[in-house]
Amino acid sequence: MPTFKDIQDAHERIRPFIHRTPVLTNSSLNEHSGAVLYFKCENFQKAGAFKIRGATNTVLQLSEEELSSGVVTASSGNHGAALSMAVSNRGGKTTVVMPNNTPKIKVNNVERNGGEIIWCEPNQESREQVLKEVLDETGSVLVHPYNDERIIAGQGTAAKELLEDIPELDCIVSPVSGGGLLSGTSISAKSMNPGIQVFGAEPKEADDAYRSLETGEIQSNETTNTICDGLRAQIGTITFPIIQENVDGIITVSEEEIIESMKMIWERMKIIVEPSSSITLAAVMKDKERFAGQRVGLILSGGNVDLGELPF
Amino acid sequence: MPTFKDIQDAHERIRPFIHRTPVLTNSSLNEHSGAVLYFKCENFQKAGAFKIRGATNTVLQLSEEELSSGVVTASSGNHGAALSMAVSNRGGKTTVVMPNNTPKIKVNNVERNGGEIIWCEPNQESREQVLKEVLDETGSVLVHPYNDERIIAGQGTAAKELLEDIPELDCIVSPVSGGGLLSGTSISAKSMNPGIQVFGAEPKEADDAYRSLETGEIQSNETTNTICDGLRAQIGTITFPIIQENVDGIITVSEEEIIESMKMIWERMKIIVEPSSSITLAAVMKDKERFAGQRVGLILSGGNVDLGELPF
Repeated sequence: MPTFKDIQDAHERIRPFIHRTPVLTNSSLNEHSGAVLYFKCENFQKAGAFKIRGATNTVLQLSEEELSSGVVTASSGNHGAALSMAVSNRGGKTTVVMPNNTPKIKVNNVERNGGEIIWCEPNQESREQVLKEVLDETGSVLVHPYNDERIIAGQGTAAKELLEDIPELDCIVSPVSGGGLLSGTSISAKSMNPGIQVFGAEPKEADDAYRSLETGEIQSNETTNTICDGLRAQIGTITFPIIQENVDGIITVSEEEIIESMKMIWERMKIIVEPSSSITLAAVMKDKERFAGQRVGLILSGGNVDLGELPF
Repeated sequence: MPTFKDIQDAHERIRPFIHRTPVLTNSSLNEHSGAVLYFKCENFQKAGAFKIRGATNTVLQLSEEELSSGVVTASSGNHGAALSMAVSNRGGKTTVVMPNNTPKIKVNNVERNGGEIIWCEPNQESREQVLKEVLDETGSVLVHPYNDERIIAGQGTAAKELLEDIPELDCIVSPVSGGGLLSGTSISAKSMNPGIQVFGAEPKEADDAYRSLETGEIQSNETTNTICDGLRAQIGTITFPIIQENVDGIITVSEEEIIESMKMIWERMKIIVEPSSSITLAAVMKDKERFAGQRVGLILSGGNVDLGELPF
């Protein structure tokens, strides 16, 4: 399990390559939620999402030899673009195995950052099979989107910044998919403020993390039929035990609640976030009693949305 | 003509009631434009637009007697909402004469801030006629959306903040409609930095300010067939002479260029701006040679857009 020291080291390592994103507040949403909300705006991050943190932390630790063989990953988009950017910064080559239903903006982001795309079907089996083929053929280095201690340490730097800016938070809510962001967030949060509570926000339509936590064992997604294209992955073998140890609960929300929260953030805050980000607000609105009067940090994980295909 | 002292006084007066909005930069748009762009984000302002500055400055100077008779204005939306908010803050009542093709979000904003709407046809004649009827019937005080020295002084505080934050600007580009924002901007800019250049950005489809400046006399709009619902008004008798004296040029752009610039800001900056705001970027892109290598301030005037009716 990565330590907070790993996250501190990651932060020093990646600092020149990332933005320190702002923390925004909004009085209208405070009123609406009954809590005091602090939004960590990773939608303003390089390549439009927090993923550049973990990707950069990992790529900077690859040897020249590893780099020269090429880097490969499987990603629904944001990790692929971030990895391509981080690898390009070091002069290497990236291949991204990507589901064929990925939003166009995320496809473009990978290509703009120099990544090459190989398509797979939008399910775990196809993703793993195509990935294996690429690895076998090329001998490239795999940089997993979340099940990697270097990735987790990098993602944990977002919550570290949030708590440096707003130390008095009562709780933090992070989206959860494969668990890289949530596990890293939980390590930073509990290390910097042992009394803080950490929650994951997950679509009901891809609730493997919720059910894994309930049963104490890793469960598979039964559907991934969610608008949150960034939250369809399977909780990881490295991320899950960290979440089990540190996280106080996972709140699942419906597609309708996710879309409503996205519209609310766009209209009231005038910022563009993905549904996979606004889900944190949906979770707070869903569980109003739990958060009533609390100072809540919400990680807005990214802002890469196809403007031609909005759900409202 | 309002002086810079009037703008300084306005700033002191309204400070407790407005946000000091951030100035954002974006390396991708710098690269794209060939200039160094500083975006003054009035889309994050209270009620979603710069209009609260002028409205608050004016309402705070009304006597109790004036206030008790009610306040009335004609507005395509943002001024109406801002005025309603400023008047509500003092416990008064606002009536807004509004074109019946106003975007729903702007209608809602007026109502949410306690304003009452009276509809008119979307042309200057109907607007003036309905306004006159309301004034005659109610004896309310008119707060004009732009042709008023108090409004101009208030709007000038946005450029004042921008130049306090980024003193080394070579030029500023502001949208122009009735001219309140552009005239106030020009007074602040030329007072704080006499060498700076100030430009207006105007839709080709509502180019009265451009033609007025060309001919030296106030011209009427021949069409107002533009997506920029905030830029359909007629240049004012008070604002025009200020613009004539201070402004270095007006750049007109097509509807296509406006929509493209809006999409670019949404996708690259992850912030929500109206077409009436993104027009400033469209102007810079249109006239690339003029701005090449320059430090350009762009006033993003507002962010109130119907999310259900996007042009892309």
